[in-house]
Amino acid sequence: MKLVCQKKDLIEGINIAMKAVSAKTTMSILECILIDANEGVIKFTSNNMELGIETIVDGEIIESGSIAIDAKLFSEIIRKLPDNEVKINATDENKALIECENAKFNILTKSVEDFTYMPEIEKNNKITISEYSLKEVIRQTIFAVNEAEKNKILTGELFEVNGNQLKVVALDKFRIAIRNIELKEEYGNFKVLIPGKSLNEISKILAGGMEDDVNIYFTDNHVLFEFGVTKVVSRLIEATNYFDSDKMISNDYSTKISINKNELANCIDRATLLIKEGDKKPVFFTIKDTEMDLSINTFIGSMDESIPISKEGSDMMISFNPKFIIDIMRVLDNETVDIYFTNPKAPCYIKDENSYIYIVLPVVQ
Amino acid sequence: MKLVCQKKDLIEGINIAMKAVSAKTTMSILECILIDANEGVIKFTSNNMELGIETIVDGEIIESGSIAIDAKLFSEIIRKLPDNEVKINATDENKALIECENAKFNILTKSVEDFTYMPEIEKNNKITISEYSLKEVIRQTIFAVNEAEKNKILTGELFEVNGNQLKVVALDKFRIAIRNIELKEEYGNFKVLIPGKSLNEISKILAGGMEDDVNIYFTDNHVLFEFGVTKVVSRLIEATNYFDSDKMISNDYSTKISINKNELANCIDRATLLIKEGDKKPVFFTIKDTEMDLSINTFIGSMDESIPISKEGSDMMISFNPKFIIDIMRVLDNETVDIYFTNPKAPCYIKDENSYIYIVLPVVQ
Repeated sequence: MKLVCQKKDLIEGINIAMKAVSAKTTMSILECILIDANEGVIKFTSNNMELGIETIVDGEIIESGSIAIDAKLFSEIIRKLPDNEVKINATDENKALIECENAKFNILTKSVEDFTYMPEIEKNNKITISEYSLKEVIRQTIFAVNEAEKNKILTGELFEVNGNQLKVVALDKFRIAIRNIELKEEYGNFKVLIPGKSLNEISKILAGGMEDDVNIYFTDNHVLFEFGVTKVVSRLIEATNYFDSDKMISNDYSTKISINKNELANCIDRATLLIKEGDKKPVFFTIKDTEMDLSINTFIGSMDESIPISKEGSDMMISFNPKFIIDIMRVLDNETVDIYFTNPKAPCYIKDENSYIYIVLPVVQ
Repeated sequence: MKLVCQKKDLIEGINIAMKAVSAKTTMSILECILIDANEGVIKFTSNNMELGIETIVDGEIIESGSIAIDAKLFSEIIRKLPDNEVKINATDENKALIECENAKFNILTKSVEDFTYMPEIEKNNKITISEYSLKEVIRQTIFAVNEAEKNKILTGELFEVNGNQLKVVALDKFRIAIRNIELKEEYGNFKVLIPGKSLNEISKILAGGMEDDVNIYFTDNHVLFEFGVTKVVSRLIEATNYFDSDKMISNDYSTKISINKNELANCIDRATLLIKEGDKKPVFFTIKDTEMDLSINTFIGSMDESIPISKEGSDMMISFNPKFIIDIMRVLDNETVDIYFTNPKAPCYIKDENSYIYIVLPVVQ
């Protein structure tokens, strides 16, 4: 194999492929990028068995072939080369020569035969969504996913398609994040549970253009994202026991407030300074007619602050884990948000009828 | 005590005082900043017993007094307040109320009596140097200081004044960094050994203006730096056994090269990619008439690259710890540097007659 590429094109391909390279593994082939120049295009593939990525890199193929190369070392070498043309030359079965200007690197490569290619995905169930929307729904829900959770259902996000509606749900034991998106066409009805880790990595690769489409293909065991010159395949999580989020949603409330999102976020951010790590102190909301008082009291000290609000319904005192409220405020785009309360022991709803619903359990003293 | 200050002025004072606050200590008073408003000015003092800092903060004193407050908490609270006027009110002996717009913090404070003030420094032996020059000489020598070294002499930098000459020397077992500065006036002859850690912190506080002067006062046990509204006192290291760096300098050489600093630095930077941490592989210099070949060979792979040079004297092969060469290239300002070699077992000199001399031992195979 013999290639000539510009450094910047290699970097772009490496940055994408690196997202599916294992960092810690005893199988050194999972730490590799496969560089494949056999079908007239230069393709970088990586696969950590949970996530697989394939992307096409600009360049000239002088001689066809393929090599598997340690991704971290390859990435570091390319990054440190001058901004110029780079030649990659697989001199024999397990060696590659990388040349740029006066610098020459001789690197050991791995056996291509050991590399596991991405699975073939059936393209029956498809939706199309813009890169922008996909990146946004992931950003606005992913914080409720705990990748370390033992209950596998809580490590993923539900993608549920009903006609022209996509609903994305993430939850842990104390909160639920739901985002609804209207799709441009009618599709079938299907749902899958995608690992949060995969969505995190995909979100980093997405440029997020409003005009750039992502095709998403759903099968029983995999989901395939196709956008630009890149394909990403993720394994799915068994979703049969997933919660019915519709049943958790209530439209009753006794108090509704509208509040400036940034003021609430900044205020809670200040309050959390008084909480030492591991300490579980709630922040108290005292809702009055035109303002809400926030207060916190820990062994470090106390803090209180009032924020102007507009209110419907009765006064209320309720307390929350401050992190749960701040996580939501940080991902919302609206300047003003509406929060609905029923009573101090019932969950609150932060919602915008057609777009999002966040449900947060209070701290009950 | 009752003060009104702008948030930005408090932040400025905190950033300076924090440099002498202990991070890990069992004495909680060493984690404090003393806020003193007793003599018509607001003074922040910190002292970790090795380094002491005193700086003046703009603001209005409504009521005199002083408090000792946990520096980290104080810093975090002030940073997260809105950009506005901040009131600090010591309500009783061990409490402070911090107010800004609608936010109110009640914080426990420490006993002022436990705080250790900075020592009084005799102002007999003084030099004056610009902030710019002081910051530069520290930056260009400090890399040769190893703060963790058991031999205390190697944890400091020698500041030696002879008339209108300041010489700063730092060294470890394999290299020496010497910077000479011409002072504007004639001073006496004195030398002190200043802890590298103190110089690192001072360097961070110095804005580095060419027109702003630093007065440095030397005593037997302390050194005092005065600049702007800030005073910094550091303890000294016993220097009686310090090496005579003049004896280590030789003007003989058999080979002299001139080389582009950035090309050499970037090339060595690339070569070090092939060295795993803890591995001690040297980089080989092969000096020919118009170019120098650099090469490295490790179990990860090999690399070689040639860099154009101009040469006087004989050809030479010599090898170095790559870190030692790159450390020097990174701090020099010249585009081209001169390197002098004698033989493959003797140290090389990187020098500019009047300003700097770096001496590096080669790796002898």
